[in-house]
Amino acid sequence: MALAAAAGGARRGAVLTPESMNPAIRRVEYAVRGPIVVRATEIERELREGVPKPFTEVIRANIGDAHAMGQQPITFLRQVRARAQRGDRGQGTGTPVSVAVPSSGGGAVPVPGADEGPGAAQRRQGAGAAAVGGLRRPERGWVSPPPGRWHTVTWVSPRPSRPSPGSYSASPGLQLVREDVARYIERRDGVPASADDIFLSTGASDAIVSMLKLLVSGSGPSRTGVLIPIPQYPLYSAALAELEAVQVNYYLAEDRCWALDVAELRRALGEGRRRCSPRVLCIINPGNPTGQVQSRECIEEVIKFAYDEKLFLMADEVYQDNIYDKDSAFHSFKKVLMEMGPPYSETVELASFHSISKGYHGECGLRSGYVEVVNLNPEVKAELSKLVSVRLCPPVPGQVVLDTIVDPPKPGDPSYERFQAEKEAVLSSLAEKARLTQEMFNRTPGIHCNPVQGAMYSFPRIDLPPRALAAAKEKKQTPDMFFCMRLLEETGICVVPGSGFGQKEGTFHFRMTILPPTEKLKILLEKLSSFYTKFVQEFS
Amino acid sequence: MALAAAAGGARRGAVLTPESMNPAIRRVEYAVRGPIVVRATEIERELREGVPKPFTEVIRANIGDAHAMGQQPITFLRQVRARAQRGDRGQGTGTPVSVAVPSSGGGAVPVPGADEGPGAAQRRQGAGAAAVGGLRRPERGWVSPPPGRWHTVTWVSPRPSRPSPGSYSASPGLQLVREDVARYIERRDGVPASADDIFLSTGASDAIVSMLKLLVSGSGPSRTGVLIPIPQYPLYSAALAELEAVQVNYYLAEDRCWALDVAELRRALGEGRRRCSPRVLCIINPGNPTGQVQSRECIEEVIKFAYDEKLFLMADEVYQDNIYDKDSAFHSFKKVLMEMGPPYSETVELASFHSISKGYHGECGLRSGYVEVVNLNPEVKAELSKLVSVRLCPPVPGQVVLDTIVDPPKPGDPSYERFQAEKEAVLSSLAEKARLTQEMFNRTPGIHCNPVQGAMYSFPRIDLPPRALAAAKEKKQTPDMFFCMRLLEETGICVVPGSGFGQKEGTFHFRMTILPPTEKLKILLEKLSSFYTKFVQEFS
Repeated sequence: MALAAAAGGARRGAVLTPESMNPAIRRVEYAVRGPIVVRATEIERELREGVPKPFTEVIRANIGDAHAMGQQPITFLRQVRARAQRGDRGQGTGTPVSVAVPSSGGGAVPVPGADEGPGAAQRRQGAGAAAVGGLRRPERGWVSPPPGRWHTVTWVSPRPSRPSPGSYSASPGLQLVREDVARYIERRDGVPASADDIFLSTGASDAIVSMLKLLVSGSGPSRTGVLIPIPQYPLYSAALAELEAVQVNYYLAEDRCWALDVAELRRALGEGRRRCSPRVLCIINPGNPTGQVQSRECIEEVIKFAYDEKLFLMADEVYQDNIYDKDSAFHSFKKVLMEMGPPYSETVELASFHSISKGYHGECGLRSGYVEVVNLNPEVKAELSKLVSVRLCPPVPGQVVLDTIVDPPKPGDPSYERFQAEKEAVLSSLAEKARLTQEMFNRTPGIHCNPVQGAMYSFPRIDLPPRALAAAKEKKQTPDMFFCMRLLEETGICVVPGSGFGQKEGTFHFRMTILPPTEKLKILLEKLSSFYTKFVQEFS
Repeated sequence: MALAAAAGGARRGAVLTPESMNPAIRRVEYAVRGPIVVRATEIERELREGVPKPFTEVIRANIGDAHAMGQQPITFLRQVRARAQRGDRGQGTGTPVSVAVPSSGGGAVPVPGADEGPGAAQRRQGAGAAAVGGLRRPERGWVSPPPGRWHTVTWVSPRPSRPSPGSYSASPGLQLVREDVARYIERRDGVPASADDIFLSTGASDAIVSMLKLLVSGSGPSRTGVLIPIPQYPLYSAALAELEAVQVNYYLAEDRCWALDVAELRRALGEGRRRCSPRVLCIINPGNPTGQVQSRECIEEVIKFAYDEKLFLMADEVYQDNIYDKDSAFHSFKKVLMEMGPPYSETVELASFHSISKGYHGECGLRSGYVEVVNLNPEVKAELSKLVSVRLCPPVPGQVVLDTIVDPPKPGDPSYERFQAEKEAVLSSLAEKARLTQEMFNRTPGIHCNPVQGAMYSFPRIDLPPRALAAAKEKKQTPDMFFCMRLLEETGICVVPGSGFGQKEGTFHFRMTILPPTEKLKILLEKLSSFYTKFVQEFS
């Protein structure tokens, strides 16, 4: 090669080409931000440039991004966040990170720019002057403020040598936040939890990939197999492709409201064992994209199955606050596992994931989440600690907001009423939109939509006529991609084809968020339904 | 296995054990947060619990974490950050994210909690009311504030459908920020740069690992080999272990101030080719842990070598603002490559990395950085876009601060003087501490410290007596780990053994940051030097 360069003749080729690159990365697919979203972005640019379209805006119903759809941030979270991150200099305490809060609580807010809302300030005062925001215990880092009309409080993180949110935190996250997460889990489940089992992360995705990394080993028929639901959230298939683990599909029962059936798990496991070594069972509850909420009985059966078949359980529970169906309730895998007692509670290994991107708050942009590990081998836990240390730490602003979410204002706290009102407004609006989505879709012949019991999506099945399938084939697109692309071009509505999540062969779906404001959602559902009807007519 | 459970007898073993886990993860090492730091954390706890020690605090000189060492955050960055993230509701504009700034600029600050500093507010007003913080162009998302004593400005991110920093950004980062990064690079290098080549990331580490993921392929002798400097920043060895790429070491010349020598690159390449397919050459400039700054001539030679030998260049340039030596200057690989002209400028593939964690600002906790790719195959670039989309987006708060760092106040801007004064104070203090470190270490017989031309660390070589080596062997520690552990136990000083970075066999080093405040650093250097002298006496 050195010779060719010296000769100056033959042009030196590139090192990194589609042919020479990592083939595992080439196999990765991620439909939620796939070709349909690339095209949506182009269309938005065309609209800005004045290209005439039969619509005036693109409605991005492709991703669970609440604020992007106009949902208002929860005031209390933003107040805490702004204050914990402010970090002005020299306001008297000499410490680098200090934030000012009004010393008079409640009522009208005297100065814009320091709006505490009716309660946040009072709450802080009330809880002993040092009680501020989401990090409340003075012995853990909040310094008592000086008196005055306005006072300065200072945030220092748990360790004296780390006085600023501009510092790295400990790699598994701030100890204080891990402890608050453990207490949150204890309140939720009524069983003990320990900060040592909590690892904060850059969103739940990061934690899910870290756990999978630990679990993947072997080659050929002893390569790790991972059971995932179909339909699934495509992070799973993408991570498995990247890690070269073997994907083993189990199908949710669409005709029974996307229920998980242990007989189907058993079938999938048998199929998987013929080509790999299945060691992991992933569950998404509430379901994404499917929106079902699992019953306690079903969870018990799954745990027994994992015990019997020696599978590591990964429970994706990021939608645990998003339950809309009156007859459904969220049961965490941890709670059910612990209540089942020995041998299950002492044996079955579980990793449960949560995130601040969903729920009633939807703080996606901060990238924060966590995993709780249960019954994890201590040496493996040490390996997990080492693995997360290579990336130094999760983003600190997200850790601060996570802390506030797991330890929100309580009844009697001055901020409680406003906080609770905002939270309930979001959740009841989502419940209303879940109902509306199901109802309106099912009014249209050919669209079949299960109840949206939880999460943030509907995943309706659509009947497509044979001529549409042929037209899609001609375009080298899957039929549902063909449908969704046409929908986008003609209405500006951006939804994700079911093939990106997986679906039973010969069935076609799309995933649509229920997040747009109610009135907009109604229009969207009407437009989508009438487009579908027109589409079917065109290809009949 | 189902039978065993049914029988209720044999206890079901764990799925995930040290033996069954991913062996590649077991091989990962990361010394910067390794055993010495674990012990430092324990000692801190012991100190809090009142365990008597010959010192009162642990000094963490193990990691480049400026704020943790007491460096004050840059005021302007914090102001922008707090405002872009505030996001109160209903302050008149009806948009979800709005922040209040005083409408009178300059001079005294009327209300704590809204401290703009002398300039930030004025600057905003002066630049046409819509000029706020780091995101300055009104057409790109800043909404003009209403008039008044205080006014509310509203941050909306570039796309109308994404009105909040609580939303996901585009996966490669906000378009606006990518464009500002491109303009920063153009000002730095005097050659064109394009936003399409910029991918924002969760710290530079994230971007480095993403690029390596693309580059790793093949098996056996055709497995990708990656040339890295020794000593290196251990992210590289950790990532290569995890990705099962082959590490190929080239040694920096300690006796010539850690210079990079192309003859040594050639030797390493030849050695590597006997066991793998070397395709990537990693450079760290300014050096970590070694602190050298490469000359323009050396960079040219490296580029020619990469051209001749068909290597992909990865340039870790996160310390580009940290140059202390009067006779050194930072030259980016991009600039030198482009100035060399064809065939190099049209052919050699380069990825250059930067971060907001270092420089004069040290905003580590936000986790933000970027990679610029040069001459990357367009299809591979599309694969990179896909890969980063699986993790959704880098943290948005960090993107906002990155934008402010690449587009800081300019001469004539109201905030310029304070900003510039703070920046220069940090950098001149670091230069003073770099000089001090070298001088004080070299006064001690047996400690040999090269000039700290740049970055944030010294990496002195220490002579260790044979009896110390024997004592270390008995403890199953490397000699430098043995020294550093004793140093920690007896003085509270936490530094990282050279073996964590790699060093020529038979030589021993440690890495120490130059970040503690000057007076504290002097005491630390004195304590460390006299501990070393005592240690040598003990084992002589």
